Amino acid sequence: MSSTYGKIFKISTFGESHGRAIGVVVDGCPAGVDFDELSIQNELDRRKPGQSRITTQRKEADSFEVLSGVFEGKTTGTPIALVIFNEDQKSKDYAHIADKFRPSHADFTYSTKYGVRDYRGGGRSSARETAARVAAGALAKMVLNYHGIEIYSYVSQVGAMKLNKSYQELDLSKIDDNAVRCPDAEMAEKMFNYIDQVRKDGDSIGGVITGVIKNVPAGWGEPVFDKLHAELGKAMLSINAVKGFEYGSGFDGVELLGSQHNDAFYTDDNGKVKTKTNHSGGIQGGISNGEDIYFRVAFKPVATIMIDQDSVNAAGEAVTVSGKGRHDPCVLPRAVPIVDAMSALVLVDAMLRARVNRL
Amino acid sequence: MSSTYGKIFKISTFGESHGRAIGVVVDGCPAGVDFDELSIQNELDRRKPGQSRITTQRKEADSFEVLSGVFEGKTTGTPIALVIFNEDQKSKDYAHIADKFRPSHADFTYSTKYGVRDYRGGGRSSARETAARVAAGALAKMVLNYHGIEIYSYVSQVGAMKLNKSYQELDLSKIDDNAVRCPDAEMAEKMFNYIDQVRKDGDSIGGVITGVIKNVPAGWGEPVFDKLHAELGKAMLSINAVKGFEYGSGFDGVELLGSQHNDAFYTDDNGKVKTKTNHSGGIQGGISNGEDIYFRVAFKPVATIMIDQDSVNAAGEAVTVSGKGRHDPCVLPRAVPIVDAMSALVLVDAMLRARVNRL
Amino acid sequence: MSSTYGKIFKISTFGESHGRAIGVVVDGCPAGVDFDELSIQNELDRRKPGQSRITTQRKEADSFEVLSGVFEGKTTGTPIALVIFNEDQKSKDYAHIADKFRPSHADFTYSTKYGVRDYRGGGRSSARETAARVAAGALAKMVLNYHGIEIYSYVSQVGAMKLNKSYQELDLSKIDDNAVRCPDAEMAEKMFNYIDQVRKDGDSIGGVITGVIKNVPAGWGEPVFDKLHAELGKAMLSINAVKGFEYGSGFDGVELLGSQHNDAFYTDDNGKVKTKTNHSGGIQGGISNGEDIYFRVAFKPVATIMIDQDSVNAAGEAVTVSGKGRHDPCVLPRAVPIVDAMSALVLVDAMLRARVNRL
Amino acid sequence: MSSTYGKIFKISTFGESHGRAIGVVVDGCPAGVDFDELSIQNELDRRKPGQSRITTQRKEADSFEVLSGVFEGKTTGTPIALVIFNEDQKSKDYAHIADKFRPSHADFTYSTKYGVRDYRGGGRSSARETAARVAAGALAKMVLNYHGIEIYSYVSQVGAMKLNKSYQELDLSKIDDNAVRCPDAEMAEKMFNYIDQVRKDGDSIGGVITGVIKNVPAGWGEPVFDKLHAELGKAMLSINAVKGFEYGSGFDGVELLGSQHNDAFYTDDNGKVKTKTNHSGGIQGGISNGEDIYFRVAFKPVATIMIDQDSVNAAGEAVTVSGKGRHDPCVLPRAVPIVDAMSALVLVDAMLRARVNRL
Repeated sequence: MSSTYGKIFKISTFGESHGRAIGVVVDGCPAGVDFDELSIQNELDRRKPGQSRITTQRKEADSFEVLSGVFEGKTTGTPIALVIFNEDQKSKDYAHIADKFRPSHADFTYSTKYGVRDYRGGGRSSARETAARVAAGALAKMVLNYHGIEIYSYVSQVGAMKLNKSYQELDLSKIDDNAVRCPDAEMAEKMFNYIDQVRKDGDSIGGVITGVIKNVPAGWGEPVFDKLHAELGKAMLSINAVKGFEYGSGFDGVELLGSQHNDAFYTDDNGKVKTKTNHSGGIQGGISNGEDIYFRVAFKPVATIMIDQDSVNAAGEAVTVSGKGRHDPCVLPRAVPIVDAMSALVLVDAMLRARVNRL
Repeated sequence: MSSTYGKIFKISTFGESHGRAIGVVVDGCPAGVDFDELSIQNELDRRKPGQSRITTQRKEADSFEVLSGVFEGKTTGTPIALVIFNEDQKSKDYAHIADKFRPSHADFTYSTKYGVRDYRGGGRSSARETAARVAAGALAKMVLNYHGIEIYSYVSQVGAMKLNKSYQELDLSKIDDNAVRCPDAEMAEKMFNYIDQVRKDGDSIGGVITGVIKNVPAGWGEPVFDKLHAELGKAMLSINAVKGFEYGSGFDGVELLGSQHNDAFYTDDNGKVKTKTNHSGGIQGGISNGEDIYFRVAFKPVATIMIDQDSVNAAGEAVTVSGKGRHDPCVLPRAVPIVDAMSALVLVDAMLRARVNRL
Repeated sequence: MSSTYGKIFKISTFGESHGRAIGVVVDGCPAGVDFDELSIQNELDRRKPGQSRITTQRKEADSFEVLSGVFEGKTTGTPIALVIFNEDQKSKDYAHIADKFRPSHADFTYSTKYGVRDYRGGGRSSARETAARVAAGALAKMVLNYHGIEIYSYVSQVGAMKLNKSYQELDLSKIDDNAVRCPDAEMAEKMFNYIDQVRKDGDSIGGVITGVIKNVPAGWGEPVFDKLHAELGKAMLSINAVKGFEYGSGFDGVELLGSQHNDAFYTDDNGKVKTKTNHSGGIQGGISNGEDIYFRVAFKPVATIMIDQDSVNAAGEAVTVSGKGRHDPCVLPRAVPIVDAMSALVLVDAMLRARVNRL
Repeated sequence: MSSTYGKIFKISTFGESHGRAIGVVVDGCPAGVDFDELSIQNELDRRKPGQSRITTQRKEADSFEVLSGVFEGKTTGTPIALVIFNEDQKSKDYAHIADKFRPSHADFTYSTKYGVRDYRGGGRSSARETAARVAAGALAKMVLNYHGIEIYSYVSQVGAMKLNKSYQELDLSKIDDNAVRCPDAEMAEKMFNYIDQVRKDGDSIGGVITGVIKNVPAGWGEPVFDKLHAELGKAMLSINAVKGFEYGSGFDGVELLGSQHNDAFYTDDNGKVKTKTNHSGGIQGGISNGEDIYFRVAFKPVATIMIDQDSVNAAGEAVTVSGKGRHDPCVLPRAVPIVDAMSALVLVDAMLRARVNRL
């Protein structure tokens, strides 16, 4: 297992869905950051269950404690440990699946890999782990905000319901105005109703989150292997349920000719080099070029559904897996702060790494 | 810059397009591998320029030398250095772009990041760097082949021309039967003619490569950050011109319901746990489940075209960039061995890392 | 700051002397380890203050909590977080030194490096941080013990008082029989009385700890940079107050001729290759050779003394630093479990890394 | 095997004693360094064989080639590959030891670890590998020199012959004035004659090298694990034949009382915080404090001697190992540039890492 991310701003997450606690240690956060506890809690609240009837009704306050690394309101350059104690540690809810492999969950692969498995609520493979990322990401944002970077993400597709507007046509300040976290109110309402129907059917549905990062100066990203978009891609693909990542023109761009796709340079009135179009998605050769960075992340329908499914148990015998209890019919709304967090973690590391390029 | 990849099977590449040499040092290759020089040369030949009229006519023999790590035909567990000396080191061909930023190339971002830049043929940002990856990947394949792993990739889309067959419907032994590296002869011919037309127009076109990996046992991949598909995604996104990555059901899968998308488990006649469908793409929770791994990689049209383009120079003045000489109208055919190589590098590292899961 | 150690068995420690808590996250512990809480507490008890009148009288129970990674008594292969909440978080005791740089402490260097500093009890630079290492080391020992490895260390010198016996002449089961942790009862008593006198003088004294590791099979250690003794050296030198490390013949060995120093090989009655002498200290070319590993670690007299000292404050003005309260006149007895822990952390990582040497 | 060192200024070395070449790839060298080929050759010349009659008479020109990363006389921020082709690749000289384990060499441990071994001249375990370090270290020095750092080392002990002067009492500009590389001419002559006698006896002798680093600003070094002296210790211990490392007061310092050992702070006439003494060796809490850094490195007598020795072969049978050919009776003179190189590699990495401490 590898629960660490980052070369300089390094995070190490821990915790199981129904264990004692989840949390994160951030090693390498610069000293002197004004530590804003509220901004961390705010991000955790955006991710927590029970926000509306289209998210799981499981209750977790997701309040966190700072165990180290902050003194008199500032980070000290030492490791910052953030912990969220789990309120719900009941094992009995999961007795019925202790021995079964739920379809498209990680039960089978964890059992095969490790020989043992904490089956309660998915254990370590649960998306509950992402709360730790959100906390660390909120800290990363404090650093980035100081340097003027802005990070956004929003739901741009649910099932076949796709928002046909680019991010430039949307008011990104409205992302949190509705339960779906789609900044287009009309589309958000349609998505909400659709997700609600899927919920009533006991089923689940996938979707797409669009990410946007503004004000990144030219020069961040470390080719040839740690290209900025490669790090973003890895970070997004490491989120539960993600199946795809594209940036800039993405998969659609493959149909364009080079003469259509190339972004012509020009010098703006302030003498700054800019591009007329931005098919590159703000990154050229793996390094930011000063334009907006944007990308899309595909989420599959989550595996937990309230419908009976065929499977096998640890002995290889055919069994039926029955859904019971609480589930997220669509994780997209709650995944928005997770995408934000991973963007921030990638960017803060890229920012710090860019400080050592020159003599 | 970060030119290293891998945690255990670690590679460190070096070299510029028109410098003295390019190459790679592999630190962490297991001892005892029967070192097959021919298989490395074969992969390099699949990537080299001048294979057909739809690839660049630049001539590079791309023959390599082994500087270390092999003794009496076997790897010794010590670093293996592979070097390809460049035949073509003429700087003068590039004098006309020394001071200009070619649209959608990395000229501007490298200049901004490092302050200096080897402008000859793109320098370090050139796709020539991938020859070193191909050599290292061929070595990785030797290790994987010993353990029965099979790696394939092929061109499945060029521009809007999309092969509407799954990999199961194709004969993967026919990938190298044509210049396009699409195993469907009929589609390959159409693609070839289309690329040839783009070439005559002095333009370029993008496409998609599909990757397939067979016989990976259940248990490879290191959640939560180094999930197998996250590593594959990063590896593919680090290849020049790549704009997107998806695995299993990918972006299309977002439109499915969970009840459609989940892969039901069953036990086959040999007592092995299998899934009835494979929307998961052979990976669940970031760990291989024993099914085929498959994924798609989007390549943009390459930036070098033979058509005049608007741009600016280092002083910020408006200039025209004129294409001259040789170019690849479509990099997909030559990118196939690069995708293979990156698959192999990801898999061999995953294999070795899986050896330390248990007491 | 870098608070992580290990390539496979990776630890990330956190916490300040007088912050909310200290702790460690272990990422990469193999699954299936019988988790023995008592053995962790036992090691923490060996390190904790107040064990005898020659250690600091500060009171810390140093009881720990397991936050993750253990299920039904076994490690699951997921990160194991261990936390020790600090009982004593009073800041006021340290108001008198908040602005002063204590001689030979890290006050000045931390302030200069980070711009801010948690001055309470040394903050992050306090040896309290080593409690987290001891907890992680106890976990490492569980893994090693399963494989038969034995780890010992003991106090072999205090000030000029040097035990003139090799480790083979001592009964290593008697290390904890006295407060000094010197297995020679007679010498231990002399050392105790000497340390007690130093304590009464308000002064401090240094010493040497000898480490011994038995039953390591041939083949552990990763040349050329991560040689087994280089990792041991780094690990020991990272402990507070350590000024030197030597293994095998060490500094004394430089006076020998090669013909005296070389360890002749022979084959024992079981057909095992052994050496007649062991000047090599169980390691040749950076790799264990199957003989006992042994080494010596030099500790300076700790900087905290109860005697007035000249210094400067943050404004650069001359000030007097007065010792008050509680101090360790000699850290050696409490450092024994820390040396044990670092030995275990080095060895467990070496063991796991040795699993990937061969095809 | 792990042949990589450094977090930001990362080196990856390769090559065997009698293979095709040895070399190093430096990934992470800042852009804009004035690349001075002569300074690299000069350091290689200091390390090469055959400098005087007290070093091995083996002949290697040790001239190097730059394969990448330098353009128009400056580093470009891309990987710099330096290669030294071996002139002497004859295997036959080593046929007599192909199957034997030479006492205190790495023959046995490499064979056991990897199953195969390049026996020619020690293969990868040969100190020839350090030529690659010296080349990389010379590059590191270019970066450090730009920032004013000065690095010295010299032979301060051979066998029992110990220079009883501190580095402050010596003229460090005279280090290369004699073949021993001891800046005290009188002592150097004695050492030379002693080594020459050992050579005539076909034996070998150990010694100590003292390292000194000047002008390092306060603030370099990354506690708690990558303390500056811990990295120096690891780096030195990774050099062939090194058995011990101490810095500042070292092993002798354990006998001092805290009141004697503590370095009192004062403010000098320029308003700079200084210490009156420097038992700390320029490092407090793992971070440089602005004073001189100094340390001592113990080298054992090298294992190759011209005297018959008892040993076993790969089959475990008793054999005699006879020395023949060329050997270094004392490696210390040639190890001086290696210690310099490792100092530079540690310091340059520390310098770059210190750039990310603050917001």
